[in-house]
Amino acid sequence: MRFTISQEVMSGIVSRAQSVIERKSTRPILENILLSCKNGKLTLSATDLRISMIQSVDCAVDEEGAVSITGKKIHEIVKEMEPGEIIIENRENEWVTITGGKSTFHLPGVSEEEFPTIPEAPETFLEISSDVFGQMVSRTLFAASNDETRIYLCGVFLKEWTDDKGDAFLKMVATDGHRLSLVDRALEKPLNLFTEGIIIPKKGVSELKYIISQGGENFEIAFSDGRLFARIDGVMLGITLIDASFPNYNQVVPDFTGQGIMVPCNSIRDALRRVSILSDQETRSVVMEVTGSEMVLSSDNPTFGDAKETLDVDYNGPHIKAAFNANYVMEIIKVMEDDAMRIEIKDSLSPALFVGCDKDSEFMSVVMPMRID
Amino acid sequence: MRFTISQEVMSGIVSRAQSVIERKSTRPILENILLSCKNGKLTLSATDLRISMIQSVDCAVDEEGAVSITGKKIHEIVKEMEPGEIIIENRENEWVTITGGKSTFHLPGVSEEEFPTIPEAPETFLEISSDVFGQMVSRTLFAASNDETRIYLCGVFLKEWTDDKGDAFLKMVATDGHRLSLVDRALEKPLNLFTEGIIIPKKGVSELKYIISQGGENFEIAFSDGRLFARIDGVMLGITLIDASFPNYNQVVPDFTGQGIMVPCNSIRDALRRVSILSDQETRSVVMEVTGSEMVLSSDNPTFGDAKETLDVDYNGPHIKAAFNANYVMEIIKVMEDDAMRIEIKDSLSPALFVGCDKDSEFMSVVMPMRID
Repeated sequence: MRFTISQEVMSGIVSRAQSVIERKSTRPILENILLSCKNGKLTLSATDLRISMIQSVDCAVDEEGAVSITGKKIHEIVKEMEPGEIIIENRENEWVTITGGKSTFHLPGVSEEEFPTIPEAPETFLEISSDVFGQMVSRTLFAASNDETRIYLCGVFLKEWTDDKGDAFLKMVATDGHRLSLVDRALEKPLNLFTEGIIIPKKGVSELKYIISQGGENFEIAFSDGRLFARIDGVMLGITLIDASFPNYNQVVPDFTGQGIMVPCNSIRDALRRVSILSDQETRSVVMEVTGSEMVLSSDNPTFGDAKETLDVDYNGPHIKAAFNANYVMEIIKVMEDDAMRIEIKDSLSPALFVGCDKDSEFMSVVMPMRID
Repeated sequence: MRFTISQEVMSGIVSRAQSVIERKSTRPILENILLSCKNGKLTLSATDLRISMIQSVDCAVDEEGAVSITGKKIHEIVKEMEPGEIIIENRENEWVTITGGKSTFHLPGVSEEEFPTIPEAPETFLEISSDVFGQMVSRTLFAASNDETRIYLCGVFLKEWTDDKGDAFLKMVATDGHRLSLVDRALEKPLNLFTEGIIIPKKGVSELKYIISQGGENFEIAFSDGRLFARIDGVMLGITLIDASFPNYNQVVPDFTGQGIMVPCNSIRDALRRVSILSDQETRSVVMEVTGSEMVLSSDNPTFGDAKETLDVDYNGPHIKAAFNANYVMEIIKVMEDDAMRIEIKDSLSPALFVGCDKDSEFMSVVMPMRID
């Protein structure tokens, strides 16, 4: 194998592949990237066995062939090399030589045969808006769980549905058991791909979000044999889905009381940031109390003291008092595009609803309240 | 105690005080900052018993008094408060109330009596250029040791000396036993303060560098009773010096061979960065070999492979080969202002000299070579 490629292009694709592979694996081959040259193209493959990425770029191929090398080292090397052409070639005993400028590097490679097989993508792909998908991920991913003992919560749930008028929508939901985030977005036309619903693991969602953020207006998606495939600008991402049932989120989302508290997002975010300084370090509990058009946020920490702040809100309902993890509420506001949101609190024990007021009215979060001492 | 101050001013002085106090101390009072109001001034004191900082600013004092509170929390609070006036007052049982905008915070305070006494500064201070002092610190501090069992190496050595013509100079030296950095700078007039030499601990040097970087052209310095005092813009820093003898650095600095290798700083830095990717992860050993006007840098890592790069240099001496920790050489280049430097290598076992060629000709570093396998 021998090919010539620009340092800039190589650095870009290696950096992307690097994000998929395992940092420290019990199987060293999973720390490798496969370089494969054929028909004037370099193909880079990386996998952690659950997520795979294949990238193809044009390059000057002098000799076809393939070999895998440590992703971490080739990434560091290519990134630091001088701009201009670099030559990568495969010598005897699978050693790989990288030359460019006045530098030469030799790295031990591993033969192509030892590299894991990457599942093949189906033939048919459907187009989906990168912007819509990216927005949905931003509004849900933060609420997914890290608790691997409940693997069905460690990802985002994606489901296509149709309303009475026959219009198609995508729904994305994530929950860690303490809070839940849900967003719907209209599809230009039905995909008929996720009508049963799928759970995409967190790492896969992050990779997907990253590659679509770097690409054009749309990307292509396919679903086959428990795997989701995404294709954009010469990159093919394969994600093994979580094989489990997602909990019935409809049971968790409370009915609207109709008595919403309208509150400016920036004001409540800044107030929460201040008041939570003196909240319990573990629970981050902040009490929210609303009387007429005044909301009082307060915290009390046995060691460090207490804090209180008042806010003007728009509300006509009865007196309400409930406590929430301030971080959960701040995370919702962080991804909400609207200037104001509506909060619906039934009582101090029921889950509360946080909903966008304008463009984000299809985005809602449910947060379980905390015990008030 | 009760005073009114602008959030911006309070945030600035608390942030500065915060850098001195202990994060986690076995004596909780050392995590506190003392606020003291008198004669229309707020004085903020912080100490870790080795380094102390006293800052004074004008403010509207309604009631004189003093109390200490947790530095970390007041820092977080004041930083997050809305711009504008804030009122800080001391209530019964030493509780402190901070109000501003629509926020109120209560923090438990500790009476002034329990706060450690901060050593008093002498009457007479001498002026010194902030720029000169800052430059000297940049060129030496990185070479100081972190090994507390050799406490005399955990700081920078500062000494005033006079040449044959009677001109006064400041010398600063730091070493960790593997490398040594030394810089001289001319003084406008003798200080007669450090003729015996003092060792300023690393943390003290960093604090001093930080506060003089924020102040004007000059700062004032005094030395009394084993302590160094620095005064600038209402800030008084007191540093307990390291009470030990600094090693005889003259023994370590090799004689000039006269056969210097002139090398462009950027080229060798970039080459070292690349070649060291495949150096041993622990030792960072890179071999430097010079034949005629060609320098070859190379590394060899049993696991990851080897790297080599050639560089054009200006050299007329015999063939030379020696190995160095690449990080040590890159750290020297990072703080060197000149475009080129001179390297003097006697043989593979003797300490090598790295010297600036132009403005930084008074800055030199000695690096011990490593074993070549």
